[in-house]
Amino acid sequence: MFTGLSNPPELSQFGEKMTKLSGVRAIMKDINETLAQNQGAKLINLSPGNPLILPKIEALWRNYTEEMLKSGEYGEVVCRYGGSRGYQPLIDAVVEYFNQKYGLGISAKNVLITPGSQALYFYAVNAFCGYTKSGVLKKMVLPLVPDYTGYGGISLYEEAVTSFKPKMTINETEHSFKYHADFEALKIDETTGCVLFSRPCNPTGNILSTEEVQHISRLAEEFNVPVFVDSAYAAPFPGLNFTDMNLVFGKNIVHCISLSKVGLPGERVGIAIGDEQIIEVLESFMTNSCIHSSRYGQALAAKAMSSGSLENLADEVIRPFYKQKSELLQKLAKQYFSPDLPYYLHKTEGSMFGWMWFKDLPVTDWELYKKLKEQKVILVPGSTFFPGLNEPDWKHQRECLRISLTASDEDLEEGIKILSEVVKWEYSL
Amino acid sequence: MFTGLSNPPELSQFGEKMTKLSGVRAIMKDINETLAQNQGAKLINLSPGNPLILPKIEALWRNYTEEMLKSGEYGEVVCRYGGSRGYQPLIDAVVEYFNQKYGLGISAKNVLITPGSQALYFYAVNAFCGYTKSGVLKKMVLPLVPDYTGYGGISLYEEAVTSFKPKMTINETEHSFKYHADFEALKIDETTGCVLFSRPCNPTGNILSTEEVQHISRLAEEFNVPVFVDSAYAAPFPGLNFTDMNLVFGKNIVHCISLSKVGLPGERVGIAIGDEQIIEVLESFMTNSCIHSSRYGQALAAKAMSSGSLENLADEVIRPFYKQKSELLQKLAKQYFSPDLPYYLHKTEGSMFGWMWFKDLPVTDWELYKKLKEQKVILVPGSTFFPGLNEPDWKHQRECLRISLTASDEDLEEGIKILSEVVKWEYSL
Repeated sequence: MFTGLSNPPELSQFGEKMTKLSGVRAIMKDINETLAQNQGAKLINLSPGNPLILPKIEALWRNYTEEMLKSGEYGEVVCRYGGSRGYQPLIDAVVEYFNQKYGLGISAKNVLITPGSQALYFYAVNAFCGYTKSGVLKKMVLPLVPDYTGYGGISLYEEAVTSFKPKMTINETEHSFKYHADFEALKIDETTGCVLFSRPCNPTGNILSTEEVQHISRLAEEFNVPVFVDSAYAAPFPGLNFTDMNLVFGKNIVHCISLSKVGLPGERVGIAIGDEQIIEVLESFMTNSCIHSSRYGQALAAKAMSSGSLENLADEVIRPFYKQKSELLQKLAKQYFSPDLPYYLHKTEGSMFGWMWFKDLPVTDWELYKKLKEQKVILVPGSTFFPGLNEPDWKHQRECLRISLTASDEDLEEGIKILSEVVKWEYSL
Repeated sequence: MFTGLSNPPELSQFGEKMTKLSGVRAIMKDINETLAQNQGAKLINLSPGNPLILPKIEALWRNYTEEMLKSGEYGEVVCRYGGSRGYQPLIDAVVEYFNQKYGLGISAKNVLITPGSQALYFYAVNAFCGYTKSGVLKKMVLPLVPDYTGYGGISLYEEAVTSFKPKMTINETEHSFKYHADFEALKIDETTGCVLFSRPCNPTGNILSTEEVQHISRLAEEFNVPVFVDSAYAAPFPGLNFTDMNLVFGKNIVHCISLSKVGLPGERVGIAIGDEQIIEVLESFMTNSCIHSSRYGQALAAKAMSSGSLENLADEVIRPFYKQKSELLQKLAKQYFSPDLPYYLHKTEGSMFGWMWFKDLPVTDWELYKKLKEQKVILVPGSTFFPGLNEPDWKHQRECLRISLTASDEDLEEGIKILSEVVKWEYSL
């Protein structure tokens, strides 16, 4: 019966775009195959974006589930269709929390719950970017790359994704560096549909400064363009900022939260806070394409947010755990890399990742990835984190690697040690 | 801070398409406002698509949640990102269940879990329909309308949705009728991207015959076109078929299941079973747009499917409950409508709805909806259930109403009584 069609059905343009195995999906496929082939063998996997299950995190969600089971709420949550805007107690909790903590003065009309934040950006990009009725191409602008590789996959039109080469400050003695938005290059105008960036940044751990965000927001406001700030790693939860950070709000800023890094990645809960007109557009797109987000995770999140336990978890468990890992990474880099090599670790200001740059490395990041794989270390090549960048000659983008901070201290040390040896060997050839 | 943007941001073509308040969304808005305005007042609401929470259904999902909490599975389900294909135990359960019951010979490669079945159709329609690289418009064909109104909202290109006027058999003495696909009009060819229909049908309760489905599938197979059979109300679960029905499988048929009518609407779980190449396309589209479906509902469903309790629930609780309601509706129609009026109830073969046609009614379905609302009865006007039909002169489509079977027996009786009076009055003018 399922012997399969003789030929694959023809795809639309969007079908072709969305099925292309490009960038990170190609790597993830290779990594998954490598892991599957090496089952049993010892691999040092420094690639995951999957957060660790810290026991206190799991306990929190278990406890709220038990509480929900004991109450009459259970059937209402799980056994009912809901409003498309989201589960009302979660919306209320978001309004109250953000008004109290940041004095925003928002109401339920400013909040939308989406099935994860990737879906949120999918709606945003395809509602505000792409072609207008009059045929103008409106672009999704990523003001600073490297940035989250998934942004490359969400636009139905590949040509709508644009990004700009960053500026860099380099500290030679410290072997550290940091990216900055290049405001001379950055173009936001009437051909911009929306702006999007992660803060803290996956993959670099960079945190755009308050001034940079305000500057971007002002440029965009002039053309009535929404700015989506992907705050999946930001304060107040998960609180994966290791330096102080201010959240920046504004008329055209949509503050986007994910609950994946507070232990609910399986439940796909995204939250958008922003201008009512923008929220309405996203809501309509979502309703037509999937009715509403699933509700169990929303109900748990409502309890955790309004009780304050989500913020406590971030402050007492999540931030300290990853901050220690990021400090360890800095220490290990100094310890194992020969100081005469041109290696640079990006300032680890936040997120769950470290980002290393090997200046003038004689091999590409992909080749380095393969060589490390032979040594049983898995790292993610950096070149997939430059979506929309049209600077083929800029070799920096093929000289970086992303290092996950979710590994054990032992694996992190062993992985950095092997990385330093492989890199040293490559520079010596 | 959130005083709002001075002007709404400009939308892309798709932004405009997806935010249009057309058809059923306009009605649902009106119904919701009516319900909100009449809080406290007695309204007879025969509009909901929201299934009732039958106590045995809620108990089932509560029990599996408790079981999951006691096991080590909880953290793996909720606190982890998963594979994009779906939660493996659910995929395994689907493979085993469908192979055993229907002898399909499928493997995990034939199964995809989506965030609800609406999302599944969104991916399908936009991957297979719309414009190809060479500029050809590939259409989504609805072989028989009335059909589910949501199909009108899922295509990014409005012009891609096409449907065909049905044939009808009418039993004058019984005051009943039934729609059939018109195979002389139905056009499936190289401009068809995919075919989609619900079976049993929301809103009519029609069940396309095995021969009709096979005929459609053969027509489509000739042009390598996938056929999506929306089985949200079908056997084996929820089992909302009141007459026998065979599931029809085939090379180009994608059998699409929803868990919303077995008590998990809040959790948004859709399941696609079909050709591996088609499944891969849908998976890629989903991964890029939302990573994966939420996992808690999937974990519960895996348990309920492999233990057989899902099938039992359908056979012993869900089907009998709604079958009784549908028989009551038939009885009430005979009891309250004057036999000299040209009213017709569609054969109630399945689903959660009744569908009535008032031949040559002097007012439109929208006017009837408003008049009923004045009498405190809410019913859904039928004209929104003809997505893609370009037959403005066919007045039948403005002469029908959808009646939800989720009401209490008392409300159903009172509603039908009032409906019969209003209709009688309209015919008498």
